[in-house]
Amino acid sequence: MFEIAELGHKVNKADYNEKIPGLRTHLLTQQQQLRKYDFSVIILISGVDGGGKGDVVNLLNEWLDPRFMLTNAYDSPSDEERERPKFWRFWRTMPAKGSIGIYVGSWYSLPIAQRVHNDTKDAELQHQLTQIKELEQELADDGTLIIKCWLHLKKEQQKKRLKQLKKTPETAWQVTERDKLHLKLYDDFVRVAETVLQETSSTQNPWHIIDGSDIRYSSLTVGQCVLDKIQAHITKHELKHQQPAPTQHSKIIHGNQPRILDSLDLSLELNKKTYSTQLNLYQGKLNKLARQAQQKKISSILVFEGWDAGGKGGAIRRLTHALDARNYQVTPIAAPTDEERVQHYLWRFWRHMPRAGRITIYDRSWYGRVLVERVEGFASEQQWTRAYAEIVNFEQALTEHGIVLLKFWLHIDPDEQLRRFQEREQISYKQHKITEEDYRNREKWAEYSLAVNDMVSRTSSQAALWSLIEANNKRYARIKVIKTYCKALEKALD
Amino acid sequence: MFEIAELGHKVNKADYNEKIPGLRTHLLTQQQQLRKYDFSVIILISGVDGGGKGDVVNLLNEWLDPRFMLTNAYDSPSDEERERPKFWRFWRTMPAKGSIGIYVGSWYSLPIAQRVHNDTKDAELQHQLTQIKELEQELADDGTLIIKCWLHLKKEQQKKRLKQLKKTPETAWQVTERDKLHLKLYDDFVRVAETVLQETSSTQNPWHIIDGSDIRYSSLTVGQCVLDKIQAHITKHELKHQQPAPTQHSKIIHGNQPRILDSLDLSLELNKKTYSTQLNLYQGKLNKLARQAQQKKISSILVFEGWDAGGKGGAIRRLTHALDARNYQVTPIAAPTDEERVQHYLWRFWRHMPRAGRITIYDRSWYGRVLVERVEGFASEQQWTRAYAEIVNFEQALTEHGIVLLKFWLHIDPDEQLRRFQEREQISYKQHKITEEDYRNREKWAEYSLAVNDMVSRTSSQAALWSLIEANNKRYARIKVIKTYCKALEKALD
Repeated sequence: MFEIAELGHKVNKADYNEKIPGLRTHLLTQQQQLRKYDFSVIILISGVDGGGKGDVVNLLNEWLDPRFMLTNAYDSPSDEERERPKFWRFWRTMPAKGSIGIYVGSWYSLPIAQRVHNDTKDAELQHQLTQIKELEQELADDGTLIIKCWLHLKKEQQKKRLKQLKKTPETAWQVTERDKLHLKLYDDFVRVAETVLQETSSTQNPWHIIDGSDIRYSSLTVGQCVLDKIQAHITKHELKHQQPAPTQHSKIIHGNQPRILDSLDLSLELNKKTYSTQLNLYQGKLNKLARQAQQKKISSILVFEGWDAGGKGGAIRRLTHALDARNYQVTPIAAPTDEERVQHYLWRFWRHMPRAGRITIYDRSWYGRVLVERVEGFASEQQWTRAYAEIVNFEQALTEHGIVLLKFWLHIDPDEQLRRFQEREQISYKQHKITEEDYRNREKWAEYSLAVNDMVSRTSSQAALWSLIEANNKRYARIKVIKTYCKALEKALD
Repeated sequence: MFEIAELGHKVNKADYNEKIPGLRTHLLTQQQQLRKYDFSVIILISGVDGGGKGDVVNLLNEWLDPRFMLTNAYDSPSDEERERPKFWRFWRTMPAKGSIGIYVGSWYSLPIAQRVHNDTKDAELQHQLTQIKELEQELADDGTLIIKCWLHLKKEQQKKRLKQLKKTPETAWQVTERDKLHLKLYDDFVRVAETVLQETSSTQNPWHIIDGSDIRYSSLTVGQCVLDKIQAHITKHELKHQQPAPTQHSKIIHGNQPRILDSLDLSLELNKKTYSTQLNLYQGKLNKLARQAQQKKISSILVFEGWDAGGKGGAIRRLTHALDARNYQVTPIAAPTDEERVQHYLWRFWRHMPRAGRITIYDRSWYGRVLVERVEGFASEQQWTRAYAEIVNFEQALTEHGIVLLKFWLHIDPDEQLRRFQEREQISYKQHKITEEDYRNREKWAEYSLAVNDMVSRTSSQAALWSLIEANNKRYARIKVIKTYCKALEKALD
């Protein structure tokens, strides 16, 4: 597949100098235009050693307005990066909507290098590629334009380049042992790269293979490619918005669907005495397990979802009572900040990812996408139906990294909710917790029920099971939450 | 000074249980109230080993609403933290206005530990304490309430505690070699702590020394202290806002002040040919120096300030042309995001601090405080006059860490500016750069001149000198900028 990039394309200096001013003007004007749109552009610059990745990136930086772009180079990960799932470092530097991110080295670098050095087998590479495709698909679904450029160089050219560099003492130091090794591995590298590029080229996110032997040719080609792709994306975007808005999604409730939640026995309860004994017992147990997990650098992510007044706060407090405050973080999810709003909706959850051995507790979470955003129409039907798979992938990234992931749904019935609302209105320091909106949400109980059922059935996997908590009785619910976390930690420590 | 905390204060269980519900309600109500105010609260929990720091922090976490607070524990710094000035790790986790940050371990931990272990001498400790006082003063000036609690324990009590822990196998493992060492160093520790506490107790930010021998007593005392201090701060804040607004600061221009900028020779220029030769020469030189700096992990921060149309963008582009795009970041400073607005004005600059060996280029910077914010009245006179010292301290933190810091002022005269504005209006891809505001700002040339003169004279230090660039001739300016950076790198590499 690289043949076309081995023809030795060249652009002479005069042609180059003639074309550059126009290209630059167009790029700058376009970048200015891009500011208005709610999508971001990711430009991946990959390729073989000596293919001129650095030169091309330098030129792009010179041509574009640095205020609305960001260049990210990924060397070996820092310890803060190593302690999180592998895609974290890419998420943390994701460009905001309306701006451009240039990636030198990307999610492709490590999978290719590992396979070339035989650190992985084909099956593992395939698995990594599947994850990459999912990531790119999710970004594309969010509107992101991904432009993937591969700068190619023939083996002889690579050899020649190293020779040339070695000639003068001025440049000889640039040739490292790593370069020599890479030359030796050239054939393996190209073979692996071929597989990777074939596997990950789609109509939506294709690879552009570019002859890297002449920097004038390659930079012009990359520049023109960026210009064309962004223009096409803007046009597509405009067209989509001119079309009539999709019809409102049907809000009919399918009454005869099997309801997972209906099977919960809400009469389960614990009396005060049993509760007190068990609370002591399990908090003690959890304290010990959590300390062991911390020592073994096992992180946890606990998600609390549930009906309003379902008792999330109380359950979280009883749980954290057994933990060391220096080691956990409760992250409440409210309206996104403006920095969060210009990113993919999962970005704000990536940013709170715990370091090794720590615990992040989400009071509400990414499930808002398929609950409140679905029911209230904040997300389009297309967005929330797509979210199930996105969430499953996201959670898989967590569990694959060894994070203990627990998802609690605190379930109560409408009568119990009403009772608690009224109770809250009586207690001074709880009054702020109850607003008119809470009452309005009650009226949509049936729609929320449907959403919860869909959520539980579509996002439960072996590694990321939902823990459904019968919560009409707070005592029962709190104990069950702590017990569930204990069990999960025991399993992880085993 | 610790005598009062060695009296063995105790609270019995009945008293404690009676007081807690009221305290909790007050804290929660107050925390709710705090949301409205534009200041943050920092609670430092420090003290001797076994003084119950962990217990107190756990209780505060239980009592307060986790949605509007954050607990930060500072273990040994990560590599990303080690690569930045020492206060960076504290800035990155600063609580937002309206919320509470609890710090376990803080900027005090390392200075105390280093002195106790004789890694530093008294003079160094004094220097560190000065920096701490400056930091706390700056936060306090910004409205931040800092509550500093020191949990004390007598030597015999510390001994007793370790003995008790060792008794049962259940707890014996908790006693580490470090604990034993700390017991041995108890006297030194208390002596150093005494100096530190005395030095850093001010009327505004006093230390609260609390008997840590009884957890019920210490947690109640800390809780009550937090409640009282926040209440007093709110009252003070309200009073300040009820007072008549301070009179507008005088905008009279002191015409007979010596003007640093007036001494610049704006007729300096380079012809095209000399420019072309020198550009090549110095870009080549810079490229080499920058690579060496990268290898030696020397970071740079370059600040570009100047008149509108002074040629910042062009100078930056000529400079970055010589750099590797993977290694620098141009950070344009526009309006703050809402996450930045709820922080100290220097916070957004701390967050872009480069990692070791990298370069951050600011297109406009923290100097906005004493330029546009001063002239346009966005900052109060109190705020911008205070900013000179804050900026000097901030820059000292950078240069002490070994960062190469350069500050460029690109100077042109009003006629040249007008010429450039008109020119910009003619060039399609530059039109977006010119707005009505630019013309409005021109009318305030005299006021801005005064502000620039004050800025240069009050924020120039040996380590952070202003480079004044005669910029009526773009060619001359660009070469001088690159030459200046080359010289600075040569000095740093020496």
